[in-house]
Amino acid sequence: MGEKIFGVHAIEEGLKQAASGSVLYLCRGMRGHTEALERQAVLTGKVIIKKIAKVEMDRMVDQADHRGAVLELASTDKGPSKIQMSTIKEFCAKLKDDESALVLVLDELTDPQNLGAILRSADQFSVSLVVIPERRSAQANSTVVKVSSGAAQYVPMAVVTNLNREIENLKSNGFWVYGADMAGKESFKTVFPKRTVLVMGNEGKGLRDLTKSLCDQIVSIPTTGHIDSLNVSVATGILLYEVRRQQAVATPSK
Amino acid sequence: MGEKIFGVHAIEEGLKQAASGSVLYLCRGMRGHTEALERQAVLTGKVIIKKIAKVEMDRMVDQADHRGAVLELASTDKGPSKIQMSTIKEFCAKLKDDESALVLVLDELTDPQNLGAILRSADQFSVSLVVIPERRSAQANSTVVKVSSGAAQYVPMAVVTNLNREIENLKSNGFWVYGADMAGKESFKTVFPKRTVLVMGNEGKGLRDLTKSLCDQIVSIPTTGHIDSLNVSVATGILLYEVRRQQAVATPSK
Repeated sequence: MGEKIFGVHAIEEGLKQAASGSVLYLCRGMRGHTEALERQAVLTGKVIIKKIAKVEMDRMVDQADHRGAVLELASTDKGPSKIQMSTIKEFCAKLKDDESALVLVLDELTDPQNLGAILRSADQFSVSLVVIPERRSAQANSTVVKVSSGAAQYVPMAVVTNLNREIENLKSNGFWVYGADMAGKESFKTVFPKRTVLVMGNEGKGLRDLTKSLCDQIVSIPTTGHIDSLNVSVATGILLYEVRRQQAVATPSK
Repeated sequence: MGEKIFGVHAIEEGLKQAASGSVLYLCRGMRGHTEALERQAVLTGKVIIKKIAKVEMDRMVDQADHRGAVLELASTDKGPSKIQMSTIKEFCAKLKDDESALVLVLDELTDPQNLGAILRSADQFSVSLVVIPERRSAQANSTVVKVSSGAAQYVPMAVVTNLNREIENLKSNGFWVYGADMAGKESFKTVFPKRTVLVMGNEGKGLRDLTKSLCDQIVSIPTTGHIDSLNVSVATGILLYEVRRQQAVATPSK
């Protein structure tokens, strides 16, 4: 059985690249947005459409909120509709001599909602690679793909066993490492270089001490609120924006 | 019965300001984070602690994910632990002649998760007022307070019947209105004035045409992704950051 995708946007994206033999399951008797998905699936000429009862679909996605549609990708499908997995070694080997790159490291984020929203931002800000640890971390499952509105399939990811060793590897490939923490230098006073690694910590505990000690610099988003911090997916979006803003200002065009 | 708060951070904040007669409900037999909340409640000298069965708590919060703790605020409590409701008229009447202000208008946002995350950012970036329509919009309920990590209680809100009329009212009080849309001018090339209104549209449909026509300018966050847009709570955080960044750069200090 292939990977299952749900969420209207995620399915729309998935259908664009679904291989022959992919199946779009629709709840019987539903109208509205599922009709549009059905039309799109028919137009691909490759996707099989099956109408099933709601209870069957509930079981299929383990009671998640499927909105009446699930796309099962053909398991032979090795195309971009799947998450693009990589390793730090492969990624660095492919980089050209003076090529710019922006790498996002997520240090033990546990909430799939946050991971999904972050992958959506990572796609929007053309992040080169997202790195997550194999353990104590949310993984890119069907909920994450849904929350990402399908963006997850466009963002190369590396799942690593030893996060700190991989950060060292990135450093030896010319990357500078910036950890996000409230006690850091203001983001807009920090000049991010061509090869930047941004490290975000866990929702509750923030960056671990060992990870923090590997960072070349700690950066913060200047705020003035009563609560201690921003939501981690919002904070990640802001820092990615800041890196891209600086690059756009540095190379004015258009 | 008073307002019910759940979520560890939200309860921690609520306890700081809970009036006499507020009740902290804890699930029997739970350990860990609920013990810390219990200690904090005891130290207030005002909050009653009641241990109940998990099924009772499930019912109390309508099966929401309560993590074993619910704080019921005393209904006599009119302090800042409740959401601060205002009207546009009251808000503008209190503004001093040349006082700066940042107002956030949410045009038919429907997802409580997004509203909660946005209120958390609104607290962090010292938004003066959040305006939401009475109809076709998520409202500040207990889920929203939880997702906001308790920040909701610090952000003044106005729930209005006619959003467009209220935008006109803000304009006649010296505000300039910026609508967020992908087709707008780049955010970092837009100079936000002292009295700024930022208008964010619905998750799927964006800004309504009528609302858009009331804006003095449309602003966008420059992105380069495959998916059409950022999550609305991430986009809101980025634009609030951009407004505050410009102000910090314009008035360097510290």
